[in-house]
Amino acid sequence: MRTARLEAFSDGVFAIAITLLVLEIRAPHGPDLWRALGHEWESYVAYLVSFLTIGIIWVNHHGLYDRVARADRTLMFLNLLLLMWVVLIPFPTGLVAEHISGSGAAPAAVVYAGVLLAMGLSFAANWRYAAARGYVQLTAEEMRALTRRNSAGLGFYALAVALGFVAPGVSLAICFAVAAYYVLPDRVPQPRS
Amino acid sequence: MRTARLEAFSDGVFAIAITLLVLEIRAPHGPDLWRALGHEWESYVAYLVSFLTIGIIWVNHHGLYDRVARADRTLMFLNLLLLMWVVLIPFPTGLVAEHISGSGAAPAAVVYAGVLLAMGLSFAANWRYAAARGYVQLTAEEMRALTRRNSAGLGFYALAVALGFVAPGVSLAICFAVAAYYVLPDRVPQPRS
Amino acid sequence: MRTARLEAFSDGVFAIAITLLVLEIRAPHGPDLWRALGHEWESYVAYLVSFLTIGIIWVNHHGLYDRVARADRTLMFLNLLLLMWVVLIPFPTGLVAEHISGSGAAPAAVVYAGVLLAMGLSFAANWRYAAARGYVQLTAEEMRALTRRNSAGLGFYALAVALGFVAPGVSLAICFAVAAYYVLPDRVPQPRS
Amino acid sequence: MRTARLEAFSDGVFAIAITLLVLEIRAPHGPDLWRALGHEWESYVAYLVSFLTIGIIWVNHHGLYDRVARADRTLMFLNLLLLMWVVLIPFPTGLVAEHISGSGAAPAAVVYAGVLLAMGLSFAANWRYAAARGYVQLTAEEMRALTRRNSAGLGFYALAVALGFVAPGVSLAICFAVAAYYVLPDRVPQPRS
Repeated sequence: MRTARLEAFSDGVFAIAITLLVLEIRAPHGPDLWRALGHEWESYVAYLVSFLTIGIIWVNHHGLYDRVARADRTLMFLNLLLLMWVVLIPFPTGLVAEHISGSGAAPAAVVYAGVLLAMGLSFAANWRYAAARGYVQLTAEEMRALTRRNSAGLGFYALAVALGFVAPGVSLAICFAVAAYYVLPDRVPQPRS
Repeated sequence: MRTARLEAFSDGVFAIAITLLVLEIRAPHGPDLWRALGHEWESYVAYLVSFLTIGIIWVNHHGLYDRVARADRTLMFLNLLLLMWVVLIPFPTGLVAEHISGSGAAPAAVVYAGVLLAMGLSFAANWRYAAARGYVQLTAEEMRALTRRNSAGLGFYALAVALGFVAPGVSLAICFAVAAYYVLPDRVPQPRS
Repeated sequence: MRTARLEAFSDGVFAIAITLLVLEIRAPHGPDLWRALGHEWESYVAYLVSFLTIGIIWVNHHGLYDRVARADRTLMFLNLLLLMWVVLIPFPTGLVAEHISGSGAAPAAVVYAGVLLAMGLSFAANWRYAAARGYVQLTAEEMRALTRRNSAGLGFYALAVALGFVAPGVSLAICFAVAAYYVLPDRVPQPRS
Repeated sequence: MRTARLEAFSDGVFAIAITLLVLEIRAPHGPDLWRALGHEWESYVAYLVSFLTIGIIWVNHHGLYDRVARADRTLMFLNLLLLMWVVLIPFPTGLVAEHISGSGAAPAAVVYAGVLLAMGLSFAANWRYAAARGYVQLTAEEMRALTRRNSAGLGFYALAVALGFVAPGVSLAICFAVAAYYVLPDRVPQPRS
């Protein structure tokens, strides 16, 4: 199977998931709207982190599938698995927006980091399978660079899950740092995609 | 008419319907967020089954229309009929998420399985019409394999509707089993799509 | 300007507007779910009529822009004007779903038919402008057929607006009849699109 | 990197953001539906201004990226930054719809104009970066015309932010005027895009 429609479908899902994030920012009420807007700062932080995270996964998805010429049924379902976690992101984003500065901060942070970890693992499954089947040609150096980057991301997400139980704010900060880190350009020679 | 825009439009609808599923998972409230999250397990099951189901229908739609070069007005409306059921899926998903472990379990399960059955019938109408008009070329063997697979799926959905009245949990399990079954690769020789 | 991205953007908007319709069907509550589901019949009717209507406008938009090779800034904004009404449709659909069998039936029906009328007028503006500028080549016969079909639709929508004040149910039935009429194949020779 | 998928993804995001605006128009309740519909006029104005604004940004995005052949990682993230503001628009639109004729008019207008200003600045960052890197070829005259138009828009949005504190209605009117101004065709010779 060609990957054109897989990419188009995935682009659609990414685009919608990233756009639905705005629905988690509720229009505040109350007599003093300035103050009510200020009280929503958790929503803005959660929106920013989630938007960046989905945006980066999209950039990386783009980078990977641009180089994948064919896909089999297994790869299509591995891609669906990845999208299942991407689509879920507005849910833990809403949890964080509502609970991060309350008594439910720990579960909100753990679930948030957990979904990002699951998404990272699914992404790794995609490129590892595509590489193993020869659907994407990677040089040994590219393979090492990808593995290093990917492992770093997954390690930090795992750390964020663990820290979520005891220090929810730090957990969220790590998730943001991972996103910010991926925005920065690679210093290792980039694959010509 | 060429099918490029039909596929693009359908991809968009599938992508949005699958993404809207997340809106049926409500951010839980209450003093103990861990417990509140645990109480939402019906939402997660319903999300999983519906996501897999829409994902599979998309894969099959892709498989079919990749091989259809032209479409007439009737096929466009048969495709719209299929999409009408796909778009509806978040509604019974919400019903199941809210009612499957309460007193409304039977109607929720019946409506859920019923919408999946209607979707399956619409899909069958699409490929049967396309085959009858010669828009898609299928060998006799492919035709038999498709018919067998399709009939099995429809039979199980019909069973799920009937069982929904008396055993809603079993009905939902059947819907999940159908989805899981379709994820598995064919053992019959696959059409070269 | 080429129309490829205009079509892709429009397809996206149609796909989302048609999918958002499901959000107007609320998951019912109450001790007897069967009965509660039955009470929602206005939602199902409204969903059906609006889905068909957006679907048909999409088919016609497809038919028109497939034959338009170039677009200028004016046509892009005429297309945006059309989309503005298409995107609005979930709003009057929700009004009808909630009010058609209550005391607000008249305003709901008038607003519903009014939005469809505005959409029809915008569609007419699109193809008339495209034809006047020579962006689409229509034979005299095609022009007559298009004009006849279009005028009939607009006439019935105008009638539905007027009747909405006194007979809201009849008004909605006319909107459904117009949609159903457009689903039927043309008897006049069709343009080779 | 080629820009095809960047454009497809952006089109998806624009299409969804523009469609989600309808969710900010709530179906009104109350015994007198005509009157209740009339009371929602702020929603309609907000919908109109935001729809036009997103539509115009889409037209301009289209005009820019049609001429950009390649994109690097930085441009992809500048584009994501622009989309982050576009996606946010339904939020201040909802604020305006709910508060513009109440006691929260000032913060609603300031936030609304502020988001449009941020979006305009992000758009300027996109084309300035693309021009500086030579990804888009602009003649000196085109550059001057773009700069003049862009600066005018940004200046008016900054004015709207400032006026929002003291005259929220005027602030909103300026936002509408900017949108309407961009709908009008250029009098300066247009780039052949």
